[in-house]
Amino acid sequence: MSVVGPKGFLASGVAAGIKPGEVLDLALVVATHGPVAAAATFTTNLAAAAPVQVSRAHLVATSGRVGAVILNSGCANAATGVRGLAAANETAAAVASSLGLEASEVLVCSTGLIGPQLPLDALLAALPEAVRSLGEKLEDGDRAARAIMTTDTKPKLVSIEADGFSVGGMAKGAGMIAPNMATMLCVITTDADVDPTELATALREAVAGSFNSLIVDGATSTNDTVIALASGLGATPSKAALTSALSQACSSLAEQMAADAEGTSKVATILVGGAASNDDATRAARKVAGSLLVKTSLFGSDPYWGRIVSELGSSGASFDLNTVDVSYGGVLVFSRGEEVPHDRGALVAYLSKPSVEIACDLGIGVGAARVVTTDLGHSYIDENMKTS
Amino acid sequence: MSVVGPKGFLASGVAAGIKPGEVLDLALVVATHGPVAAAATFTTNLAAAAPVQVSRAHLVATSGRVGAVILNSGCANAATGVRGLAAANETAAAVASSLGLEASEVLVCSTGLIGPQLPLDALLAALPEAVRSLGEKLEDGDRAARAIMTTDTKPKLVSIEADGFSVGGMAKGAGMIAPNMATMLCVITTDADVDPTELATALREAVAGSFNSLIVDGATSTNDTVIALASGLGATPSKAALTSALSQACSSLAEQMAADAEGTSKVATILVGGAASNDDATRAARKVAGSLLVKTSLFGSDPYWGRIVSELGSSGASFDLNTVDVSYGGVLVFSRGEEVPHDRGALVAYLSKPSVEIACDLGIGVGAARVVTTDLGHSYIDENMKTS
Repeated sequence: MSVVGPKGFLASGVAAGIKPGEVLDLALVVATHGPVAAAATFTTNLAAAAPVQVSRAHLVATSGRVGAVILNSGCANAATGVRGLAAANETAAAVASSLGLEASEVLVCSTGLIGPQLPLDALLAALPEAVRSLGEKLEDGDRAARAIMTTDTKPKLVSIEADGFSVGGMAKGAGMIAPNMATMLCVITTDADVDPTELATALREAVAGSFNSLIVDGATSTNDTVIALASGLGATPSKAALTSALSQACSSLAEQMAADAEGTSKVATILVGGAASNDDATRAARKVAGSLLVKTSLFGSDPYWGRIVSELGSSGASFDLNTVDVSYGGVLVFSRGEEVPHDRGALVAYLSKPSVEIACDLGIGVGAARVVTTDLGHSYIDENMKTS
Repeated sequence: MSVVGPKGFLASGVAAGIKPGEVLDLALVVATHGPVAAAATFTTNLAAAAPVQVSRAHLVATSGRVGAVILNSGCANAATGVRGLAAANETAAAVASSLGLEASEVLVCSTGLIGPQLPLDALLAALPEAVRSLGEKLEDGDRAARAIMTTDTKPKLVSIEADGFSVGGMAKGAGMIAPNMATMLCVITTDADVDPTELATALREAVAGSFNSLIVDGATSTNDTVIALASGLGATPSKAALTSALSQACSSLAEQMAADAEGTSKVATILVGGAASNDDATRAARKVAGSLLVKTSLFGSDPYWGRIVSELGSSGASFDLNTVDVSYGGVLVFSRGEEVPHDRGALVAYLSKPSVEIACDLGIGVGAARVVTTDLGHSYIDENMKTS
């Protein structure tokens, strides 16, 4: 059911001609009863795109009350100067005018190539159709999710039923794995009855454990945005229940993104334990997960643990080679400073699976972290070597 | 002439059987008149290999007096525990005994796969031949340089004639581009008459501007080592003259490494100017140089400047999108927050060259940096996906 699952939301997806061909490229998500509690996390990139700048300002201006989110694919509207900023503002104003909202009650998201100006005329011309076709059926949510796809091969949808409230969501991308399209975007809806502050707190925690723990190529895009809207038409959840439901939704979408990440053949979970702190564990896990050498080994199903140890040692985390354990799928390969004898053939077979796990125990403290990554193979090169 | 060019040094390269086949894999560089002034820079990786640990300790113990350097390819002797440490120590002791030196006056370097134990018996059995064949002819230096090669396709040699003294050197690798072989090693010799402290200061500066400004895959190997030996048989140079000659030698070797880096088809120089500080410029240049997306664009000869801007914005350097200029080979493509109209075909042709330049002016201050990188294409994947 995605974003239309929770009570109080409509969605649509239409073809505005921003992308070539008659494909869906404009999505609209609307709260049926006017502005609702909203929260968002945005990219930390200082080259943030125009829609990120506009949405960030709108959330501040309204103290987290939003009536609609408009999203387009086919153009990131990033690095587009004052014209790009004006186009994002005009988009919000046009949506607001169509729906009887203030411009500041509309959030804007874009995804696509960095640089080109947003084809505003095409977008505005398609807006009436996007409003007219708003619905709450399965297919409406599905069309919205498809309209934000770029090089994704399938839409990413999620629906969570919690105690007295539900959560739905849609997402696209996988970090900057699809850099031509430069972004991950996500809209989460819920009918939970919560205020913007509670929603923001729960969202931040959910994002940290899901999207922010997924590394495909280490790039922080200009457009990354995760938005949560809460209609308040359901129950009032406890803080823990809300965080848990949002975390489930975000984790499911992040896993769908990793599995669909272009040019990759497998997903690897890097677990780091025994670190001096959780920060150290995250640092070490991210260094391993982001390593070209580890990722090419994963592509080749090669259990070359030397690369893991080397990345851990240069991660900046507290480290002692003599206390480190490394395991592939539970099979210990390195301990007490030396290789542990193991069946290499069995590990190659294990690493040939579509989902694998590498666990590293630093043997120092109790800090732990989990990061999901992908392999790096020929398709990644093919997908990313040309923008046109 | 490489390491045997400056007065006072002999070298040899022999086949010890550490690598399969009858190929050169053991190199020896000896100061003819006993221990001389020495300095070195080592990897910052906390998983430093046994030879790095031993060489570091020896330099401290002798306050920078070294009589010989023994180097092997075919095995990194990294992550090999107490046995690996013992093997590195025994290697130094055996060389010392052959040459009438103290063990602490011998430095040890290894390069190859991480994990396997050093085949010490084979190494020690070949040592007499390595000592017997020491010479000062062109071919002796060449054999030594070939004996440290792993997946290098050619030896890296340099000879610099300065005012009253000369500098020679050999190197292998390119960061961890050839990770199966995991290392860059470099030995620089000079007949300049300098003390260890002066040599260390000049070497540090030379390495910062050469090897430490070369990014192939962002990995810091377990074995990286640059050693300088000064026989004192030539003139006493000024500090500036020594630094200049060492910098020329290191820069030449770094360029040879970049050009020979496996799986790459071109070398790109990333220039960042106008940064708030030199540190900021370095941070920004390294982020661009290390970016998978920028590197795949280089492989595809695609002038997608959006990736450059996005990496600059997420580098951690002070950044304002509206003051940034980006140029490819002198052609401005982005300025004042927007794309600058340009001839895309001409840029594609430019980026198809084996050596290209990308300049970024952050428009904030006067900090500047220069980093050399390579493209990322299919051959890199092929070279790195399997260790065997």
